[in-house]
Amino acid sequence: MSEFDLIDKIITQNQPHPAIEWGPGDDCAIIKDLSSKTLVTADTLMDGTHFILSALSPEEIAHKAVCVNLSDIAAMGGTPDYMIVALCLPQSLSGNFCDRFFHKISALCQTHNFGLAGGDTNTWQGPLVISITLVGRPHPRGPVLRSGGKPGDEIFVSGPLGGSLQGHHFQFTPRLQLAKRLLDTCQINSMIDLSDGLAGDLRHILRASNVGATLNKDQLPARHCLRDLPRSEQIAHMLSDGEDFELCFTLDPSEARKVQLWPELFPIGQLTAKSGLHWSDGSEIMVKGYEHMLDSEHS
Amino acid sequence: MSEFDLIDKIITQNQPHPAIEWGPGDDCAIIKDLSSKTLVTADTLMDGTHFILSALSPEEIAHKAVCVNLSDIAAMGGTPDYMIVALCLPQSLSGNFCDRFFHKISALCQTHNFGLAGGDTNTWQGPLVISITLVGRPHPRGPVLRSGGKPGDEIFVSGPLGGSLQGHHFQFTPRLQLAKRLLDTCQINSMIDLSDGLAGDLRHILRASNVGATLNKDQLPARHCLRDLPRSEQIAHMLSDGEDFELCFTLDPSEARKVQLWPELFPIGQLTAKSGLHWSDGSEIMVKGYEHMLDSEHS
Repeated sequence: MSEFDLIDKIITQNQPHPAIEWGPGDDCAIIKDLSSKTLVTADTLMDGTHFILSALSPEEIAHKAVCVNLSDIAAMGGTPDYMIVALCLPQSLSGNFCDRFFHKISALCQTHNFGLAGGDTNTWQGPLVISITLVGRPHPRGPVLRSGGKPGDEIFVSGPLGGSLQGHHFQFTPRLQLAKRLLDTCQINSMIDLSDGLAGDLRHILRASNVGATLNKDQLPARHCLRDLPRSEQIAHMLSDGEDFELCFTLDPSEARKVQLWPELFPIGQLTAKSGLHWSDGSEIMVKGYEHMLDSEHS
Repeated sequence: MSEFDLIDKIITQNQPHPAIEWGPGDDCAIIKDLSSKTLVTADTLMDGTHFILSALSPEEIAHKAVCVNLSDIAAMGGTPDYMIVALCLPQSLSGNFCDRFFHKISALCQTHNFGLAGGDTNTWQGPLVISITLVGRPHPRGPVLRSGGKPGDEIFVSGPLGGSLQGHHFQFTPRLQLAKRLLDTCQINSMIDLSDGLAGDLRHILRASNVGATLNKDQLPARHCLRDLPRSEQIAHMLSDGEDFELCFTLDPSEARKVQLWPELFPIGQLTAKSGLHWSDGSEIMVKGYEHMLDSEHS
């Protein structure tokens, strides 16, 4: 059942990744060992749910499908090693779409130095489904979890937030290099990538670390496309829009000093022993994340 | 984007697999190292293409989705380590379906001693799609490829063939234990699992190994459900029905002697220096495999 067919062809056309031992057409890909711990993540994108096929280029769809997975590896402070791509292709889809889709996939493999290790291609009458599994390895310091946050930690984000659906979510750079530089430089206590909005994702850290947080309203960095909105609306977008794919991480103030001059980092608040998510004036932040808003729309 | 949600819940409810370090809700699963080479395979099953949801139990669908992947690991002589399950669930699907589906998944993890390392659950308006990535490790002798067959090798299959679509394809046992016992006992030169029919899959070995083969018509073992058919029809089914999920492997006659008394093995012919697939009387076998028949139906 594992004729890699289309994906097989793509792999053999490209420069092989050193970690991947490829016997064309064998039942499994063979991966050479890279480390003593492995990171694995999976994300599936479906036409009509996560993207609208007719409104996008093959390159944009491939970018998003791969980079949401790369962002998850970055969020653990890891490095990607290899990827498996499973596709349900509508029978109406052109060969040109597939060529451009896989050309972009190959380019992303080159850019971020990981290999395509195989997959499964199927055609059907249904919508386009792209299911990607990405395997990587943690930094020598070990994987960064959501549960390591401590009261007093400084909270940072790796870029401006909000308004991602105006285009950023098909063009974003997964923060792999930044995550590596951070871990090369200092001790990160907890980290997550912002896919469901700052309010929602930061709460994952708070829950896992059993802490609270205070955010400084004036420090939240708004994406350029929000510039003409009143500040209160900017803040609502930054807290709940989702799909920013920036890193949100926490670290001890003594460690934070080592990165305080990095221009891409924005300090936004502190973790607290007191539970809950608050503004620095003590008022509670009621906004939920993107996912929860979707849930209520659907219910 | 990697809230494991439903799958997260399943993992925490079950006994953890020793190879899987599970931080509930982190961006990736963490796998402890197991070996110096890794096997990876992926198979996607779609309602209406690979199964008919309304005609099957959740257990049958889960069995097939997992075991086609286990069969690929067996075909390389490997042992499964962990699995990632990506799901597109129709909104109409009941919670009871998911409970029974994952109960079966957990049982298969126990039976074959591998872990569920996460995945991605989505609901949508489309049909049920199950995309599984399975990661394992080769036998200490190394992975068995399709390309290692040599002229003079004996060809064996691990069980009766044909008629799988009468039920076997939702109930088959992936030949992991047999593959391990074989590799513990002797040197296997080439191996494949029979998913597309003996004629189609054996040709994969012939092409990869650059050899031919002679089959003995009288030795081909027919599945019990074919017993009332004339022998010529039995043979057509055995060559092309597909979805047998038995192993087909080749080994030197001196090695074959070590397993000649194993009751589950059937010798069916020899690899030859002369290319092509022939009967022992010299006539060519024209039948193609299952996949090719489907291709022509669809074109």
